[in-house]
Amino acid sequence: MSLENLKLKDQNSIRLKCTLIHDQMVDILSKLGVPNKHSKITADVLTAASLRGVDTHGVGKLTGYAKAIISGKYTIPQSITVSTESDTTALISCGNGLGFVGAHTAMEISIDKATKSGIGMVTVNNGHHVGMVGYYPMMALKHGMIGIAATNASRSVHPALGVKPLIGTNPIAFAAPAGRERDFVLDMATSTVASGKIGLAKSLGLKIPSGWAVDSEGDPVLEPPNSRHDGWSLTPLGGTVEQGAHKGYGLALVIDILCGILSGGGYGAKLKGGENMAWTMAIDISRFRKLDEFKSMMDEMIKTIHSTPSESIKSSVLVPGDPEWDTYDDRKINGIPVEKGEYAEIVKMAESVGSDVII
Amino acid sequence: MSLENLKLKDQNSIRLKCTLIHDQMVDILSKLGVPNKHSKITADVLTAASLRGVDTHGVGKLTGYAKAIISGKYTIPQSITVSTESDTTALISCGNGLGFVGAHTAMEISIDKATKSGIGMVTVNNGHHVGMVGYYPMMALKHGMIGIAATNASRSVHPALGVKPLIGTNPIAFAAPAGRERDFVLDMATSTVASGKIGLAKSLGLKIPSGWAVDSEGDPVLEPPNSRHDGWSLTPLGGTVEQGAHKGYGLALVIDILCGILSGGGYGAKLKGGENMAWTMAIDISRFRKLDEFKSMMDEMIKTIHSTPSESIKSSVLVPGDPEWDTYDDRKINGIPVEKGEYAEIVKMAESVGSDVII
Repeated sequence: MSLENLKLKDQNSIRLKCTLIHDQMVDILSKLGVPNKHSKITADVLTAASLRGVDTHGVGKLTGYAKAIISGKYTIPQSITVSTESDTTALISCGNGLGFVGAHTAMEISIDKATKSGIGMVTVNNGHHVGMVGYYPMMALKHGMIGIAATNASRSVHPALGVKPLIGTNPIAFAAPAGRERDFVLDMATSTVASGKIGLAKSLGLKIPSGWAVDSEGDPVLEPPNSRHDGWSLTPLGGTVEQGAHKGYGLALVIDILCGILSGGGYGAKLKGGENMAWTMAIDISRFRKLDEFKSMMDEMIKTIHSTPSESIKSSVLVPGDPEWDTYDDRKINGIPVEKGEYAEIVKMAESVGSDVII
Repeated sequence: MSLENLKLKDQNSIRLKCTLIHDQMVDILSKLGVPNKHSKITADVLTAASLRGVDTHGVGKLTGYAKAIISGKYTIPQSITVSTESDTTALISCGNGLGFVGAHTAMEISIDKATKSGIGMVTVNNGHHVGMVGYYPMMALKHGMIGIAATNASRSVHPALGVKPLIGTNPIAFAAPAGRERDFVLDMATSTVASGKIGLAKSLGLKIPSGWAVDSEGDPVLEPPNSRHDGWSLTPLGGTVEQGAHKGYGLALVIDILCGILSGGGYGAKLKGGENMAWTMAIDISRFRKLDEFKSMMDEMIKTIHSTPSESIKSSVLVPGDPEWDTYDDRKINGIPVEKGEYAEIVKMAESVGSDVII
C-alpha cells in the first residue's frame, strides 16, 4: 500500500474555505454553551490541523467533541484552575472540558513564564483530547522560543515484550524557529502510527501495512479493526524489540510521566477513552544565544538536509514540518477537504443546535 | 541472531572489581595531566556504564580517551566556562576537553538552578564524547528531580528518504524517581541501534540483523563494517519511512537543535568524528506536586507494567532501566567484564604513563 493513499482525496471529500468552516465551528460550539474564547481556540486548532493536512485531527472531528459536550462527558463551560505555580512552573486543571483549551492555556502560561524567567513548563490534569499536538509548540515560534508539547492517552499500544494494549499513542511535538527557511515542526506519535491512521484506512477501505498493528498472538493485523479491544494493539515506534520497540515504548512512558504523573491526572493504563493529560514547555532562545544567530544556523542545517541525496526522484530529503507546510500552502488557497460523511454530520449538527449553515 | 549474544561474555573478557578499575582509570588520567576532579568524573561515568551493562560506553573505552589526550586532540586541563547565564539557563563551553566533564558540570548547574528556580537547562559547546548519556539525568534523582540529557554526534545515520549518513545517533536519556520500585531510566539512541552495537558485533564476530544498517543502495548491511564511510549508514529509529523512520530522524534533529544549535557548537552534519555537544535539564517535581505522591504513582505504573502479560516466558514486560539495574546488581558483586583486548590495552596504557597496575 502506498502511504500516499492514506490522505483525504477530492473524490471522497468536499473542499471548504478555511474561514467559513472555522466560523461554522465557532458558532456550533457557542450554541452548545462554550464561551466564545474557548470556541475560537478549538476552531483554531482544528482548522490548523486540516490546513496542515493532519486530517485525522481536523475539522471533520468537530462533531465528536460536540457530542461529548451534549452528552455531558465534557463540563461546559469549563474552568481552568491553577493548582500550584512558581516562576517557571504550573500545574493546571483543564476542568474536565475541551482539551484544546487546557493545552492552549498551558502553552500561553509556558510562554509567559519563559518571557520572564527563560523557561516555562506546565502540566495539565483533568483533561481531554487536545487535537493536533503540534499546534501548541508552534505558538512559541513568534516569541522567538522553542516550544514542546505532549499528551498522553488511554491504552491502544502494547509495551515492548507485551501482548495487550497498555499505553497510549502518546504524541510529542517540538517546534523551533528558522530564519529564511520554514520553521522546524516535528509532531509524532510514539507508536509506529497514530490511531487516527487506522481509522482513516478503515474509512478509505484500505489495508494497513504489516508492522503497524498486531493481534494478541503477535501476528500482523492488516485489516483495520473496527474498534479498540484487547484483541489487537498498535506497535510502539520501532515495531519489534530487535528493531527498537523498547525505544518507542520508553518514549511513550516518558510522556505518561510528564503529562500524567507530574500532573497527577493519570498514566495511560489508568485513563478511560477520551481522557488525555497534557504537558507544554517554552524555552527563550535569547537566554542562550542571539536569536538571529540561532535562526541562521537553523537555516544552514535545513539547507544542508534539503541538498543531501534522496532515494526518491519525487522528493528531496525533508525536514520535519515540510509536508505540512506544503499542504498548508495548497489548502489555504484551495480549501480544506472534509470527508463527505463528516461534512454531512457537521451540517446536521449545525442544524440541530440552531447554527446557520454557512459551509 | 539473538540480541542476547551482543554482550560481553565471560569467555572473551576478564572480570575486574569496580573499585579497582575505577581507581586505575583515575590514576592513568591524572598521570596524563587531568585534574583529579575531572579524572574522577570520567572514571565515575565509565564505571557506571560498565556496571549497568552498557559495555559500548564502559571502562574498556578508557584508552580511546587517553589517546585523545596524548595526541592533543583534547585540551587538558580543560576550562569549563560560562558564556551566558540566567536563573534557569546557561550556555557553557566544555573547553575542548573531556566531554564527561562538560556534561557533568551542565547537569550540576541544571540541578542547582532547578533547586532555586524549579527548572534548570544547560547546553554545552566545544565538547567531546560524554560516554553513557544516561548517567547525567540519574544525577537528578537524589534531588527529587526529573533529569533529561542528550548529546549529538557526527554523521553515521541517514535521514528518512536519504541515502548517505547525515545525522548522528544522537541519544537522549530521561530519569524519574520511583518510591519502592527501581527508578525509571530511559537511555536510547535515536537510531535503530547505537554505533557501539555495530562495533561490538564486529569484535564478537557476529552478523547484525537486517534493518540496523543499509548500504548506499538501501540494501541491508549484515556484516558489521570496519569503519565509517559514505558507503553505509545506520537507520533512524523506525527503519523505513513506512515504519516511522521520519520519527527517529526527527528526534535526532531535535537533539541536534538542543545540543548543537542552541549552544552554537554545531549540528551533526558539521561535526567531526569525536566532536559532541550536549544538553541537560533538571525539573524539580515538588514545584508541581508532592514528591511522595509522584513517587507513589510511579510505583503504581511500574507495578502495572510488570504485571501485564508478556510474550516471553523468560521475562516479564520491562520498565526502562530494568535490564541495567539487574546487570548492576550482578556486576557490583561479581565484577565488571572487560574484553581481553581492551584489558591488555588498559594495562599497556597504565605502564606507558607510569601508573602502577592494580587491576
